[in-house]
Amino acid sequence: MAQRFEIRLAGSGGQGLVLGGIIFSEAAAIYDGRHATQTQSYGPESRGGASKSEVVISDEEVDYPKATNPDVVLLFTEAAKEKYLPLCKKDAIIIADADLVKSEIPSEYKRVVKVPLTRIAKESVGREFVANIVALGLIRELTKVVSEESLEKALLKRIPKGTEELNKKALQLGKEAAYKYGEHILKG
Amino acid sequence: MAQRFEIRLAGSGGQGLVLGGIIFSEAAAIYDGRHATQTQSYGPESRGGASKSEVVISDEEVDYPKATNPDVVLLFTEAAKEKYLPLCKKDAIIIADADLVKSEIPSEYKRVVKVPLTRIAKESVGREFVANIVALGLIRELTKVVSEESLEKALLKRIPKGTEELNKKALQLGKEAAYKYGEHILKG
Repeated sequence: MAQRFEIRLAGSGGQGLVLGGIIFSEAAAIYDGRHATQTQSYGPESRGGASKSEVVISDEEVDYPKATNPDVVLLFTEAAKEKYLPLCKKDAIIIADADLVKSEIPSEYKRVVKVPLTRIAKESVGREFVANIVALGLIRELTKVVSEESLEKALLKRIPKGTEELNKKALQLGKEAAYKYGEHILKG
Repeated sequence: MAQRFEIRLAGSGGQGLVLGGIIFSEAAAIYDGRHATQTQSYGPESRGGASKSEVVISDEEVDYPKATNPDVVLLFTEAAKEKYLPLCKKDAIIIADADLVKSEIPSEYKRVVKVPLTRIAKESVGREFVANIVALGLIRELTKVVSEESLEKALLKRIPKGTEELNKKALQLGKEAAYKYGEHILKG
């Protein structure tokens, strides 16, 4: 059976989740040579500002491109947590922005990483809007589902000219955050 | 049964098809209040430079986000034509870039529109890369599946600051092309 790996990025419009999903799936497919899909689904919640992007990576063609049982879930708002946490399997890697998701995540979820993604982007890069790229670096380091080189190549292809250095820095900060906040995952 | 409308945009990387799909689906969902999905599938052909973006618009939640029987197919390269034309239903609206798809489209396809999208973008806007936006304006006018206002709003939200006017012009040129090249569709 084909190894299938699913990622769900959930938050609000303007957080760059669609772009994040595109970059991650292009890293997997165009540069790592696997199959990948990237999907956004828009419903009534999008009118309220919610945004969701899903990536599926597989060794074979992806028949069903929606995430049905994600291995990694990024929660970028309290609303995203309320909606998607109950749908998470207990051993999924759950990443929450520590400042934007204040409420508790129950201990039945064993692989939770709370990281101040947006604060890191703001304070260390000076650009809040690269929090999505910090998240990509973090997810990559925690999962190794795409190679570091491929992710950087895919990133550089999709960002505006002139922002290369700050985006590369954001990716690097995400990697470092994996060791600072996610050691329990890296060891497990 | 929910009305389901499928669009497939097929060409090569760098033609902005992913962004085109995102803009069209956001027009439908965020601004027109319907449900929509936007999906890219990457396989071996993506490594060769091929790109494909699919949009599904529906009055209900979209269960299966891949286009299975598209109502509109945009062919932006000869390779895209070779691969996707045989999968088109005979009454689909088939839009081909007149300069990039030189080979003949068999007469069994009844609703074919050949438009020099890239040439229009280059000569009338001075920017070849807005050919994707010309295509969106054309698709919108031929199908009326999203409103003009919603498409423009979705466009303006997704493009780089400073490019508003040329993108709006590209959209307008697409609309005009519908009357110049697609009158047989508008009348049918």
